[in-house]
Amino acid sequence: MPRAALWITAALLNLAPALAQTPAQAANQYTTAHRSPLTQSFSSFLSIPNVAADPDGLHRNAGLLIHELQRRNVDARLLEIPDAPPVVYGRIDTPGAKHTIVFYAHYDGQPVTPSEWDIPTPFTPTLRTVDGEQRIYARSAGDDKAAIFAQLTALEALRAANIPLHANIRFVWEGEEEAGSPHLEQILTANSALVHGDVFLICDGPVDQSGAQTVVFGARGDTHLAITVYGPHHGLHSGHYGNWAPNPALMLAQLLAGMKDANGHVLIPHFYDGIAPLSPTEKAALARAPVNDQMLMNAFWIGHTENAPAHLLSLINQPSLNINGLSSGATGAHAANVIPPTATADLDLRLVVGIDWRVQQQRVVDYVRSRGYFIVDTEPTQQILTTHPRVAMIVRDQASYNAVRTPMDLPIAKLVIAAVQSAATENASSLKSTSSVRSSQVVLLPTMGGSVPLGAMERAAHTRTITVPIANYDDNQHAANENLRLQNLWDGTATMAALLAMQ
Amino acid sequence: MPRAALWITAALLNLAPALAQTPAQAANQYTTAHRSPLTQSFSSFLSIPNVAADPDGLHRNAGLLIHELQRRNVDARLLEIPDAPPVVYGRIDTPGAKHTIVFYAHYDGQPVTPSEWDIPTPFTPTLRTVDGEQRIYARSAGDDKAAIFAQLTALEALRAANIPLHANIRFVWEGEEEAGSPHLEQILTANSALVHGDVFLICDGPVDQSGAQTVVFGARGDTHLAITVYGPHHGLHSGHYGNWAPNPALMLAQLLAGMKDANGHVLIPHFYDGIAPLSPTEKAALARAPVNDQMLMNAFWIGHTENAPAHLLSLINQPSLNINGLSSGATGAHAANVIPPTATADLDLRLVVGIDWRVQQQRVVDYVRSRGYFIVDTEPTQQILTTHPRVAMIVRDQASYNAVRTPMDLPIAKLVIAAVQSAATENASSLKSTSSVRSSQVVLLPTMGGSVPLGAMERAAHTRTITVPIANYDDNQHAANENLRLQNLWDGTATMAALLAMQ
Repeated sequence: MPRAALWITAALLNLAPALAQTPAQAANQYTTAHRSPLTQSFSSFLSIPNVAADPDGLHRNAGLLIHELQRRNVDARLLEIPDAPPVVYGRIDTPGAKHTIVFYAHYDGQPVTPSEWDIPTPFTPTLRTVDGEQRIYARSAGDDKAAIFAQLTALEALRAANIPLHANIRFVWEGEEEAGSPHLEQILTANSALVHGDVFLICDGPVDQSGAQTVVFGARGDTHLAITVYGPHHGLHSGHYGNWAPNPALMLAQLLAGMKDANGHVLIPHFYDGIAPLSPTEKAALARAPVNDQMLMNAFWIGHTENAPAHLLSLINQPSLNINGLSSGATGAHAANVIPPTATADLDLRLVVGIDWRVQQQRVVDYVRSRGYFIVDTEPTQQILTTHPRVAMIVRDQASYNAVRTPMDLPIAKLVIAAVQSAATENASSLKSTSSVRSSQVVLLPTMGGSVPLGAMERAAHTRTITVPIANYDDNQHAANENLRLQNLWDGTATMAALLAMQ
Repeated sequence: MPRAALWITAALLNLAPALAQTPAQAANQYTTAHRSPLTQSFSSFLSIPNVAADPDGLHRNAGLLIHELQRRNVDARLLEIPDAPPVVYGRIDTPGAKHTIVFYAHYDGQPVTPSEWDIPTPFTPTLRTVDGEQRIYARSAGDDKAAIFAQLTALEALRAANIPLHANIRFVWEGEEEAGSPHLEQILTANSALVHGDVFLICDGPVDQSGAQTVVFGARGDTHLAITVYGPHHGLHSGHYGNWAPNPALMLAQLLAGMKDANGHVLIPHFYDGIAPLSPTEKAALARAPVNDQMLMNAFWIGHTENAPAHLLSLINQPSLNINGLSSGATGAHAANVIPPTATADLDLRLVVGIDWRVQQQRVVDYVRSRGYFIVDTEPTQQILTTHPRVAMIVRDQASYNAVRTPMDLPIAKLVIAAVQSAATENASSLKSTSSVRSSQVVLLPTMGGSVPLGAMERAAHTRTITVPIANYDDNQHAANENLRLQNLWDGTATMAALLAMQ
């Protein structure tokens, strides 16, 4: 695809900036003036496939981003190691700067199953009006190309308004976050002088479900296990052998059922051991955050929640165990009267500070063993299967990482909060006349429910991390029909402008 | 495909029969003399696709069978109703006959997933040597084209040996047994005079696992339920909403886990209520049957059995509950970090005499309701999902039928046992010199574990049913790599010859 003219440059448009604008005001003026070409440019960016199965597509995304940084006079290069998508790196040195601010985002997206999407392909960006507001549908519309586009646009808006930068700025845009960032730490470590900063701003994830701008001071860690249990060596006739040959689907159901009680509390021994408690500041911030549970239940068509009556925002400060997928035999049109040979569950474990991912994996493995299973980590032989009543193969994902939490009262944290608050105040006042419910509140959360490899960044870049998401919560992140509410893109651009112009 | 010359006719080969041959001896002489062309003919028959999704393939099978019956001077026709595969019907009236014997088999096969097969396609019949003996691999090699081929070949062998028939003979070869025989009763009822007989010989299923010829006096009934439980309306990010949004895979696991105890005993209330007890004759026959459990455990690579220490042959006289398939989200390469919207299990319920399929379905539905689920039978609306904590859609399969058991001491049953025993004795003696373990024992079982719509036949044709299977037990029936041990085809032809020549 042609690289030129993806973004309209302010120089060409020759806009005269207003006097004494705040960075957020300048961004809002710029995005309001150029809404249509900016939307078109974002759409072009989203049309480049960015899944792990398509390394060429990832490289095309990276190449485009280098070009766009260079067009803005940002010193840009790829940080590369063999057999991994590159990190796109950009650098602006500001004379006399007291701080160095690093903007992290990722240009890769989750795998796609095109048949599940309501648009021609996940890379055919499509505008739709939802509840009277425009949204754009495509993979990574929300997670996480929106953040990259907002940063590039904010940079342009500040220059168009002649608003100077005060800090040194770095951009670190990763290409394999959705694969668990297996090489990020290695790449950052190899370039630690380039990527060091006072803070990494993690521009990823959704804002609060109320729509209020959010600053998050940590993320849960993440690890996965795939558990396979074994019935007969091949599918057996369920009439001739039913209720004699072990049914792996039932075995797996019984194994999984015992992992949680009926209310969703995890029963695996020691699962909650070691959790680092929240500080008084963190508890107070959490108490001020909106409670959106009932609204979300209606939006998601659900009639109960796990771990009720605890609220969502409280629960994401706990470790979690989820089943991402189950499979055994076939259902629906392909179902046959067989006892399937195997049954598999993919488990997703989210971690909080104080619990190491290897320890949490081991707790699950120990639980499976305690249920009478002989554990293997590769396909079991006939000898193993016939000499043990129950055998489970457990594959431990090594692309895992721990949770991280930055104290909210660090000086750099207070500067970030102030910048985001200034944008939120501006965004709330600039659109008072629309019907959209808007609030100048900035929601401060100790952690997000999702995971980003913050620990790897902190270790490799000798920095702290604070997350500033901009996407709408209902963006179908990781699923079919991912989308971004366009107003989140414009508001997010103002937020990024305020952060770029920080002292 | 060309219809001519699928079977070699004895007339062309002009064989001189030996004097005073038994029917089984005549069949063995015939199949020994023509092994190669008979194998080729069977292969041609297996190459015609016969799955429900391919009605044209089913019609080609039926057309071929009409042709083959007519070539043997059997009065043959299709018994048809709209939108169902036809029944192939054949009729031989014998002057002075005291009995009418109906040979039932089916020419359709289970659905196939070609990628799971080790041969080019499930309809590319392939010969392989297993443990020193030849087998032929293809869909329906064992279930159930072998029986049809054995009957046609036995008819030819008897004529070649000038052995007369004594009974009236009918052939009833169905085309939708693997779909649950939804139209069989209707077709038989509409043609009840044509299909009436003293006994229906159900030539389907495998012989005892020891390899001994088997006569079975009943079959379990069969019914299915598909249960879907609901999480969020669309896949949700498992980090942001994990352990708050209900996970349908976990809900389903907990629901299924409670259906059986750790030893496989079904816990659904009343599940075993109403079972008609075995008679002393049936108990005695069961006590004489071989116990093959340990051999089967080795063959199937399993280290425990459900309901131990009860044996397989005892357990198939009980109702059963099996999970045929489980699905929720995705596993393996397609797994994503989502809370899936739904989870589905396909359940297979086998029934014994005394338990009606509608009653057994209702017991499962009642159990699901007792676990706190609101039950629907079509996709639930947002209103239903948000106003009930837990919702399950249960689709009850209407193509279901009850178990049937014929007393072993009826006069016609004794005649059938005697005929099968004569063939077993002949088969055992004719191959004494081979290394294959062969027994003249005939295993008599009150019921088979599998299901055939015996009740429909009994009601529609005013008859009794007795099952005479010929396939090897390890034929991968209903699964990938279905096969038939060729010696079972030759032995089965002798058995069919003895039954065709019954008094």
